[in-house]
Amino acid sequence: MSKNHPLVDKFEEFSTWYTDILQKAELVDWRYNVKGMVVYRPNIMYLIRRITSVLENLLIDSKHVPVLFPAVIPISNLSKESEHIKGFENEVFKISEAGGEKLREQLVLRPTSETAIYPMYSLWIRSWKNLPMKMFQVVSVYRHETSATRPLLRGREFLWIESHDVFEDEIAARNQVKEDLDISKKAFLDFCIPFLMLEREPHDRFFGAENSYAFDTLLPDGRVLQIATTHYLGQKFSNEKVFDINFLDRSGKHRFVYQTCFGPGVSRIAASIIAIHGDSFGLILPFEAANIQIVIIPITKSGEDSTRIIKKSIEIRDKLIEKNYRVKFDNSSDTPGQKYFTWELLGSPLRLEIGKKEVEDDFVTIFRRDKRFREKIQDLDLEKRINELKNEISNEMYYNGWTWFNSHIVSISNKEMFMKQSLDSGIMRASFCGRRECAEEIKEKTGFEVRGKRIDISEEPSERCFWCENESKRIVYIAKAY
Amino acid sequence: MSKNHPLVDKFEEFSTWYTDILQKAELVDWRYNVKGMVVYRPNIMYLIRRITSVLENLLIDSKHVPVLFPAVIPISNLSKESEHIKGFENEVFKISEAGGEKLREQLVLRPTSETAIYPMYSLWIRSWKNLPMKMFQVVSVYRHETSATRPLLRGREFLWIESHDVFEDEIAARNQVKEDLDISKKAFLDFCIPFLMLEREPHDRFFGAENSYAFDTLLPDGRVLQIATTHYLGQKFSNEKVFDINFLDRSGKHRFVYQTCFGPGVSRIAASIIAIHGDSFGLILPFEAANIQIVIIPITKSGEDSTRIIKKSIEIRDKLIEKNYRVKFDNSSDTPGQKYFTWELLGSPLRLEIGKKEVEDDFVTIFRRDKRFREKIQDLDLEKRINELKNEISNEMYYNGWTWFNSHIVSISNKEMFMKQSLDSGIMRASFCGRRECAEEIKEKTGFEVRGKRIDISEEPSERCFWCENESKRIVYIAKAY
Repeated sequence: MSKNHPLVDKFEEFSTWYTDILQKAELVDWRYNVKGMVVYRPNIMYLIRRITSVLENLLIDSKHVPVLFPAVIPISNLSKESEHIKGFENEVFKISEAGGEKLREQLVLRPTSETAIYPMYSLWIRSWKNLPMKMFQVVSVYRHETSATRPLLRGREFLWIESHDVFEDEIAARNQVKEDLDISKKAFLDFCIPFLMLEREPHDRFFGAENSYAFDTLLPDGRVLQIATTHYLGQKFSNEKVFDINFLDRSGKHRFVYQTCFGPGVSRIAASIIAIHGDSFGLILPFEAANIQIVIIPITKSGEDSTRIIKKSIEIRDKLIEKNYRVKFDNSSDTPGQKYFTWELLGSPLRLEIGKKEVEDDFVTIFRRDKRFREKIQDLDLEKRINELKNEISNEMYYNGWTWFNSHIVSISNKEMFMKQSLDSGIMRASFCGRRECAEEIKEKTGFEVRGKRIDISEEPSERCFWCENESKRIVYIAKAY
Repeated sequence: MSKNHPLVDKFEEFSTWYTDILQKAELVDWRYNVKGMVVYRPNIMYLIRRITSVLENLLIDSKHVPVLFPAVIPISNLSKESEHIKGFENEVFKISEAGGEKLREQLVLRPTSETAIYPMYSLWIRSWKNLPMKMFQVVSVYRHETSATRPLLRGREFLWIESHDVFEDEIAARNQVKEDLDISKKAFLDFCIPFLMLEREPHDRFFGAENSYAFDTLLPDGRVLQIATTHYLGQKFSNEKVFDINFLDRSGKHRFVYQTCFGPGVSRIAASIIAIHGDSFGLILPFEAANIQIVIIPITKSGEDSTRIIKKSIEIRDKLIEKNYRVKFDNSSDTPGQKYFTWELLGSPLRLEIGKKEVEDDFVTIFRRDKRFREKIQDLDLEKRINELKNEISNEMYYNGWTWFNSHIVSISNKEMFMKQSLDSGIMRASFCGRRECAEEIKEKTGFEVRGKRIDISEEPSERCFWCENESKRIVYIAKAY
């Protein structure tokens, strides 16, 4: 690690790099005295708020409305759907006492909110006129993970957005799944996050879902991270044995609704942005994710009159704010060098340096965080150039993200190739028999997981199952996962 | 109740009016099966989001930064400050089991976050260079209230913002209290909420605080509601016996920090806006609190060509959005009458009606929700008039709120006057001895509470204590409270 690099190389030592960046950029503190729960410091909250805002706007644009349900759920609600309770009963935090007295019924902290929300949907939905009903909430959820926790990647409390949508029929619900996938794709485009869009294997579905779809991205250590899921629930929660969500249809008959739910993981999207784009100087934030997109740093020397430098800086700041950029003029008492160091660590996409020369010769020095490259731009061309750079940076971060991602997907044909490839990091693509036992054996013996089949393209298997050599059903993607 | 009034008169039957408006405007649903916890439906979430946004912006403008701490706190943290734990131990929800196993240490759901945050402050703060540290979080808090719960007014889960600020010395901390009070006043000005700004009696302080200040507003039934508090904590949480938050001061000595905390109650501010401004037609939202400030309703008749009406409506919508108004063009299939009914219930400040006449004669009919008054405005004058109306409405709602509030404060001199006045609703102003026993006796015998002395003006007592006739210390305000 060179003295000029505050951090190690993330591709060589990801774990150290990740821990260090969380600490040095003051993103997250894991010294809070509840295991698996962390403190979100201001610098990560800015990122969290940007991610949340992008997702909320996409949800609102697609006619979702905000709602907020209690954080606690009576345990009997959770037990109504048998697969659902089986899935979560060993993960929940239980409250049995309140106000100094034992509760008549235990409450659990929400691990997800189907069982909080759907009893109310049953009361709210009467007729087809109430449908579709599309609601979302921005909340923390609580799961007592037994595997090792890692800040933002796997925690016992994490931030997400969950939407819960209700429809008259299966077609409308299946279309919602597509819309959820589109919302995710748009958000990940903004954040320059590459992904595989997969349908999970039947044994790996969300508890109670008929189909589960998920976005997996890839971190520098070669492990995949699930960053959003959307589930087709059909009538599994709405039928009379569970939450009895029925409605009077257009022909006057009572029918059960069709449902979907969607959960982009805000904490994990933040982790992906940090891990995928960062380098040994710190964060590199995509334009849309940056709370401060452009930082302006005056290059002043003690003893010299800085009036004109400050004046020019403020003029440029105000002009850029008017153009809807998020700009900060850093006029603190730190030296320019200290400011460079700090703002590179924090990942603001562009830095404008304005000193004596810049004032005298009517130009601005622009520093691109992603390439750590400087250029001089005449004052008159500044706005135009910033607009170009915004697009260039987004395109290049997107392209670089996808290029690296795609170069880490390797097709394999048999166990031998798998075992050899598994020494490297990344994702493997293979023909697979579709049997649960096969997937479980792979997981147990190698730590690798069958993550499912792609849904954006159709891929036909041409070989026998890479693992058991039985007839194969589909092409799947296999990786170690967080 | 006339057929044209969906709700009863709030001054005559406040409890019925309040329950009905929450239901009919689809604000809150209290049928969730955990007592004292409610579901926030979309229409209240829009209001909640506006309130939160106004307060967040004020906090950010005063150099607060966002942060997020876990919702659970180890019980040992809570026990560190003896008054604090005494205050909260009979109110907390306790978690003793997670993931199917008993926890080694019980956790509580945050009733407030001093004991979550201050141990981290102790790690983060090293020197005077780290100070002031001013952080806020937007969260739900959990208190197992034993008194009767009422949606938004008193719940076991409620929404608030809490800021926790740390300073080098007492003067800076005391100034922060003033800034907190100013932030509250600015927000309440935006929401046209009248208030008394009081210092609570010593026995009524926040658990662990040296001084507690609070804003009380008055609801139509004559009971006061605390909507924000700010506390001067001094060194009561920072000293070595509690959280040991010390720093190296400018002279190189280790000293303990001075602290303040501030908590505007978002749920209660929403309740105040609803209760103070609403009428028998529904909500009346102040401009700043309205998610939809202007609704445009096309007056079309079936069989008639509505092209020009729609075109004019959309043009006006787009022009007003450009001027940063929050506008909705309601082109749904409901009749104009149904739309009027709905939007009056939801409280949007202005409604524009655009029909055939409006198109032909180049004018717009404007309906003011607060006065339920119509006027016709030439197209050319529309923007100017809306801007005027925005100010007129804000000023009148503010003025009317304060006039009603002030007319319900009555000065009394002795127990006889108190008993007579206590049959009416409202706030009483009286000389008071300052003794805890006296306040407790008043509460026990009459249900009225001594809410404290005003801090915005200095008031000297001129009579003996109205209750015990001992020497009086100060003028206080007395009311029944939520």
